[in-house]
Amino acid sequence: MENNLTMEKLVSHCKATGFVYPGSDIYDGLANTWDYGPIGVELKNNIKRAWWKRFVQENENSFGVDAAILMNPKVWEASGHVASFSDPKMDCKSCKTRHRADNLIEAHSKGAVKPDLMTNEEMEKYIAEHHVCCPRCGNFNWTPIRQFNLMFETSRGTIGDDQSKIYLRPETAQGEFVNFLNVQRTTRAKVPFGIAQIGKAFRNEITPGNFIFRTIEFEQMEHQQFCRADQSEEYYKTYKQKAWNFLLDLGFAEDHLKFKDHDKLAHYAAAACDINYLFPIGWSELNGIHNRTNYDLSRHQEFSGKSMQYTDPITNEKYIPSVVEYSIGCDRLLLATLCEAYAEEQLENETRIVMHFHPAIAPYKVAVLPLQKNLSEKAKEVYNSLRKHFMCTYDEAGSIGKRYRRQDQIGTPFCVTIDFDSLEDNCVTIRDRDTMKQERIKIEDIAKFVSPKLEF
Amino acid sequence: MENNLTMEKLVSHCKATGFVYPGSDIYDGLANTWDYGPIGVELKNNIKRAWWKRFVQENENSFGVDAAILMNPKVWEASGHVASFSDPKMDCKSCKTRHRADNLIEAHSKGAVKPDLMTNEEMEKYIAEHHVCCPRCGNFNWTPIRQFNLMFETSRGTIGDDQSKIYLRPETAQGEFVNFLNVQRTTRAKVPFGIAQIGKAFRNEITPGNFIFRTIEFEQMEHQQFCRADQSEEYYKTYKQKAWNFLLDLGFAEDHLKFKDHDKLAHYAAAACDINYLFPIGWSELNGIHNRTNYDLSRHQEFSGKSMQYTDPITNEKYIPSVVEYSIGCDRLLLATLCEAYAEEQLENETRIVMHFHPAIAPYKVAVLPLQKNLSEKAKEVYNSLRKHFMCTYDEAGSIGKRYRRQDQIGTPFCVTIDFDSLEDNCVTIRDRDTMKQERIKIEDIAKFVSPKLEF
Repeated sequence: MENNLTMEKLVSHCKATGFVYPGSDIYDGLANTWDYGPIGVELKNNIKRAWWKRFVQENENSFGVDAAILMNPKVWEASGHVASFSDPKMDCKSCKTRHRADNLIEAHSKGAVKPDLMTNEEMEKYIAEHHVCCPRCGNFNWTPIRQFNLMFETSRGTIGDDQSKIYLRPETAQGEFVNFLNVQRTTRAKVPFGIAQIGKAFRNEITPGNFIFRTIEFEQMEHQQFCRADQSEEYYKTYKQKAWNFLLDLGFAEDHLKFKDHDKLAHYAAAACDINYLFPIGWSELNGIHNRTNYDLSRHQEFSGKSMQYTDPITNEKYIPSVVEYSIGCDRLLLATLCEAYAEEQLENETRIVMHFHPAIAPYKVAVLPLQKNLSEKAKEVYNSLRKHFMCTYDEAGSIGKRYRRQDQIGTPFCVTIDFDSLEDNCVTIRDRDTMKQERIKIEDIAKFVSPKLEF
Repeated sequence: MENNLTMEKLVSHCKATGFVYPGSDIYDGLANTWDYGPIGVELKNNIKRAWWKRFVQENENSFGVDAAILMNPKVWEASGHVASFSDPKMDCKSCKTRHRADNLIEAHSKGAVKPDLMTNEEMEKYIAEHHVCCPRCGNFNWTPIRQFNLMFETSRGTIGDDQSKIYLRPETAQGEFVNFLNVQRTTRAKVPFGIAQIGKAFRNEITPGNFIFRTIEFEQMEHQQFCRADQSEEYYKTYKQKAWNFLLDLGFAEDHLKFKDHDKLAHYAAAACDINYLFPIGWSELNGIHNRTNYDLSRHQEFSGKSMQYTDPITNEKYIPSVVEYSIGCDRLLLATLCEAYAEEQLENETRIVMHFHPAIAPYKVAVLPLQKNLSEKAKEVYNSLRKHFMCTYDEAGSIGKRYRRQDQIGTPFCVTIDFDSLEDNCVTIRDRDTMKQERIKIEDIAKFVSPKLEF
């Protein structure tokens, strides 16, 4: 990427500034878990708010839900996850490590072979013919491929028998489908309408995660549009466009994004594509848009015995609605946002690291900086009045230049400096993160100056 | 309660209006799980925002984190949860059901005996002497008491052996403690400072939940104040007061709240109390404030081998900080908020159900209502301009009185009616939920009229 950002550099920047720490850090972590630090949690909350505003608050006929992570296990029979949400894995009999056959093939062929189109037999044949060895010990001593389910299992109640087995949801989507009837009934919404949800999902991934790109728990932001079958193609186009516009409005450069149609469609899907982003690890999936037909509601009708039919109040037509799904990983979007915002800029005497976040999602909106420590009383007064309006930070340690650098590297869009004149004229210097230009404004006007720039 | 609210009535109101549905509803549910519907998720998000504003954004020297739910299992050894986070349970050998011994005793003694002060032997003795029978089958045929851990277990990776056993966190607090060093380092905060978190926790409860009062997954909102031991008593008082004020500011009546000191302190705690609320099920815990001494960080130092000592930059004094914890269940606060807001009011010709939420947490801020359907174009225009600012809803079905009732029962603070004059004078009638008074204001002034009333 043109900003020379590597994943290693980003991980270390995030750890140093407090965006993201390794999970359970003092216990040497837990693989593929990460904790959001003080500025990471603000960034994440702001991203969630921007998304919710766009896809619920301002979106035509759309309603939010927040469903439980633990669901009746029949949900996952209906969805197909119990039967087929699994990865093809093989053990190395020499060093007793477990590997994904598809990943071995992809690595061996340097991406030329697409293992997601292959059967287990075809993968075993490829591995045998190409003598693909264990990347850990170098031996060729594999078990056959077995499918391992990616759902985390746990037990409800106190007896660990099969009947009380439940799962951590591997996706949020079923929470929207299962509540289709409830939402329609209570909102009296007419189809077409949408149900949106932001929530955690869990997948027992054994592959390396590339920082927060792939984690064993992650937050999804999803919008399911319920419509007539003959409307689904149009909604598929609409949500492709909405998804794209959302990213542009967050500040993504158009040439860092591209649509990618799926090579292989799920048997029930009529169309599916991703928006890929140019991560430091290369072009990778950022979000998906899927025309799922009426598969989901039909399956739930079959497994629950509850009718999912909708009756059109005007035509009296009865049908099971189709679904157009738009889904984006919150953590993955946050990662893309970090990558996109990151810049190393050459100044006169130094290089500054600056995060060019859209002000709406920047963790702190304003940093209040007294020019000298004996101005701290006035500065605290300004700080305390501003943080009633938005997240602010306060810093009186080190030279003003050093303090600007600290705010740049966490993306604070505005720095307010209190100097000795401030005591007399009740004005401050406000400095723009991106242009580094300063202007002098009245203390009482700061909130009015900043607020409109935070809109999304 | 003076509003005649029973839990049954509230559950049915929530289900009918879309605050809360039973979890996995079409599959006949999963015990003690609930899903938030369109207005429930807005209410919940607004409560979380109000809390975060008060305890992070505006709170002195306080920082947020968002830690992973899945943590290294050593965390739960250090915290004591592996060894002792359990309930005393006994099986009825006649009907094969499992029960909590403490609950049996509490029910039998009608609350006169406090089983949380008793050992297992004392509980068994009480049950034998009082011949406490199984509430299910009426027999007296108990196994001895055994302790069952409340943590949900699952397995990391793909091999279900003991080494890969992990837990769903039973509390969020450890996420703040484990990140003490990271947060201090990256924020360069001086002790005293606070770490706050909002996040899900899971407990394998078998007891009836009383709607969302006790659920197997729930969201906690917590603030941990790190301080010198000699400051902890003062902070304990401070956070008691802050917790109390937060509830009053949300609109709680003072006589529905009371402090309750714990009968029994954890061996490490210096002081602990709850704020109880007068729920329809009686006075019950709403939130807790605990002076935890330096137990938590000391245990993590012991189990992780990492020094948790803080060095005071001025006095050079070295110490492991003490912690004052303030913790409130988000779902439980939402339940209390529903109970507190609910009212049945006698009007001239009818009874209205109205939710008197603080406007800051009300799901919808404004409902836009065209007086007749042929005014819908103008009404939609107003609706679309307003929902750029805040959550709004639109309703054109039924008489205006019926539509007011619908908004009252979900707590919408303002109803905007578009009439034929609106087409001429660009004014609307805005009606206040609580006073039911109406005034006529310009369309362009609606947002300015409403916004200040939404502040918290």
